[in-house]
Amino acid sequence: MPIVVQKYGGSSVAGVEKLRKVALRVKETREKGYQVVVVVSAMGDTTDELLALARQVSADPPRRELDMLLTCGERISMALLSMALQELGVPAISFTGSQSGIITNDAHSQARIVEVRPYRIQDELARGKVVIVAGYQGVSYKKEVTTLGRGGSDTTAVALAAALSAESCEIYSDVDGVFSADPRVVPEARKQESLSYDEMQELASAGAKVLNAQAVEFAKEKGIVILARTAHGQGSGTAVREYVAPADTRVKGVTAEVELAVLSAELEGGRLSELLEFLDVRGVRGRALAFDGLVGGTGRTFVAVPLQDVHGLEALRRDVGARFGGAVSLREDLGTVTCVGAGLNADWSYLRRALGVAEEMGAGVQAIHTSPLQLTVLVDKAHLRELTARLHREFLGA
Amino acid sequence: MPIVVQKYGGSSVAGVEKLRKVALRVKETREKGYQVVVVVSAMGDTTDELLALARQVSADPPRRELDMLLTCGERISMALLSMALQELGVPAISFTGSQSGIITNDAHSQARIVEVRPYRIQDELARGKVVIVAGYQGVSYKKEVTTLGRGGSDTTAVALAAALSAESCEIYSDVDGVFSADPRVVPEARKQESLSYDEMQELASAGAKVLNAQAVEFAKEKGIVILARTAHGQGSGTAVREYVAPADTRVKGVTAEVELAVLSAELEGGRLSELLEFLDVRGVRGRALAFDGLVGGTGRTFVAVPLQDVHGLEALRRDVGARFGGAVSLREDLGTVTCVGAGLNADWSYLRRALGVAEEMGAGVQAIHTSPLQLTVLVDKAHLRELTARLHREFLGA
Repeated sequence: MPIVVQKYGGSSVAGVEKLRKVALRVKETREKGYQVVVVVSAMGDTTDELLALARQVSADPPRRELDMLLTCGERISMALLSMALQELGVPAISFTGSQSGIITNDAHSQARIVEVRPYRIQDELARGKVVIVAGYQGVSYKKEVTTLGRGGSDTTAVALAAALSAESCEIYSDVDGVFSADPRVVPEARKQESLSYDEMQELASAGAKVLNAQAVEFAKEKGIVILARTAHGQGSGTAVREYVAPADTRVKGVTAEVELAVLSAELEGGRLSELLEFLDVRGVRGRALAFDGLVGGTGRTFVAVPLQDVHGLEALRRDVGARFGGAVSLREDLGTVTCVGAGLNADWSYLRRALGVAEEMGAGVQAIHTSPLQLTVLVDKAHLRELTARLHREFLGA
Repeated sequence: MPIVVQKYGGSSVAGVEKLRKVALRVKETREKGYQVVVVVSAMGDTTDELLALARQVSADPPRRELDMLLTCGERISMALLSMALQELGVPAISFTGSQSGIITNDAHSQARIVEVRPYRIQDELARGKVVIVAGYQGVSYKKEVTTLGRGGSDTTAVALAAALSAESCEIYSDVDGVFSADPRVVPEARKQESLSYDEMQELASAGAKVLNAQAVEFAKEKGIVILARTAHGQGSGTAVREYVAPADTRVKGVTAEVELAVLSAELEGGRLSELLEFLDVRGVRGRALAFDGLVGGTGRTFVAVPLQDVHGLEALRRDVGARFGGAVSLREDLGTVTCVGAGLNADWSYLRRALGVAEEMGAGVQAIHTSPLQLTVLVDKAHLRELTARLHREFLGA
């Protein structure tokens, strides 16, 4: 029997009624002749609530204990979904990340999956059960509980789909797939029927919440087709798969990232590598947005770090000050807008048009960054929404 | 260095402020030269909230999944307490029941500890760390997560104290030890400086919430002295230890159990064993309060089952009806009042006086039960508080 992996995000399992709907959808899938593995996130705002508790106790909570704490969210979801399925007469069993054989490195709060040993899952599938797996978590080779970072449940789903040779990997959320911009910001945004792995990765890295960037990387590596769909209704969703050369180079989506801390540095040449090592030691991974004029004199550098990845912002700010003084500052007033599409930096007209739009509205671009797949501008957070809408209109039309 | 095990109940860790106070007390204990193992319960009403969620999903939730769900409560407490200690500069690490080596049988939701393998705890103590352990939970030899039933954190603490050859096992709660009755019901109740294991076990089985009955059994078996104390202030608490023959036979405490379901049966001889087997198969363990007139004709039997041990009351009611028809009914209107003290049934005057008190207030005794250590009367729940107060006055004075 073919295997399908379905992942349901936090808002799809927020509350008992929604859990019941998920249970019904799983039941239907099973009745169509599939073996079903379900990956669940924590219900609604559970993770944020637990994180807030931790921050009340400690400004910079130790990451091992934070992982211990946060993994409870998915455990609650998985146990309740298993109960809901059994209530519908569907045999089901829930497994933690550890019980599912999700083995990670020991980078607490940002762990990467290094191996999947899905033997218990396979045994229970063979017994005719639906297997429910807690997303976002694993166990390190040191036997410690780890988490995979925000959006890590997507990665769990893709990794399991690969390990189980699943026919498909379906990621369910509140929206029916990937849009060319956030429809709440750009009403004329349209759904993309299909995207390449690379395009999706760029969108995810630049703030689009629909799919997790590491999950897409994993899917690309393993050749798993991801179907991003809505948990409500029967929309066709967006398929994320191998790149198919398009007829024309064009922008596939525009996305903004508001939840950023930006390290703004004015450093002499040698100190940049010192800064990067400083961040690396602390496990802070960011996007380098501009490396400018570093040979010889003083250069400006911006490194954008997703806030969700910084568990001790105040501690980081203190340490940065102690080490670099006024030469590096941690700013929370900047955000990015990113346009994604294959070949964007092969044709400078895109960058020119983007800068023209920003200039016209007075957005005050602090830095730009381009790659074969995207162009990003760093601006004041106050301008993010309007600039997103204007760039969407410029490149994707009304 | 001597080891001390401290257990903090749910109300002692309800909220960040209380957690900080617990952390301070642990720090003080460590500074006095002890290695400290801390066992924590779930914060405040967390367990009840999770249970309520489960019951919304399923009237009779599968126990394996229920255990998976409920064990999150203690995980949250332990991770937060570890953070709070580290914030105070005290090295600490938290372990789940499984990581602590608490091995149980596979009776989900009512598991018994069969072995303790505290190697990871010992390693971390040797490294100078405070070790925080999630109470109430373990792992079965089938590698499944299990829970020990209500009050199971006490059992975790005593079992660890035994396995680690701890100098003492301190159980912290909101009250400073064990009282002769619930002070909210009987204002003149007084604290007992010391009780025998047997007396404490009877009180706990009959509804006194201060200590868990299985924990006391464990302590008795291993010769661990339990000190029940308040988490606030410096009261001397109650020591629970080997029986020391008292100068006179007397009542040490009066306690009521209101959270009961009572199986009231009118059965012919052979069917009583059928009923007991029926309950046993379902894992329902109760106290048999009266076996009456079973040789030959029809007899009346009352079996009192703590409500907290029945996870599927409606399913049980349905099954009882299907199997025994009107001969057995499940009643929720009855409760028990129990007087505890060594030798109580050696002197019938206690029973006579207790029945006299009940008769005088018109409490309508449904059944009585005595043992060398206690006498229990089954009455309508409406009479529990008054009867408790009156019996306390009768046997322990105003």
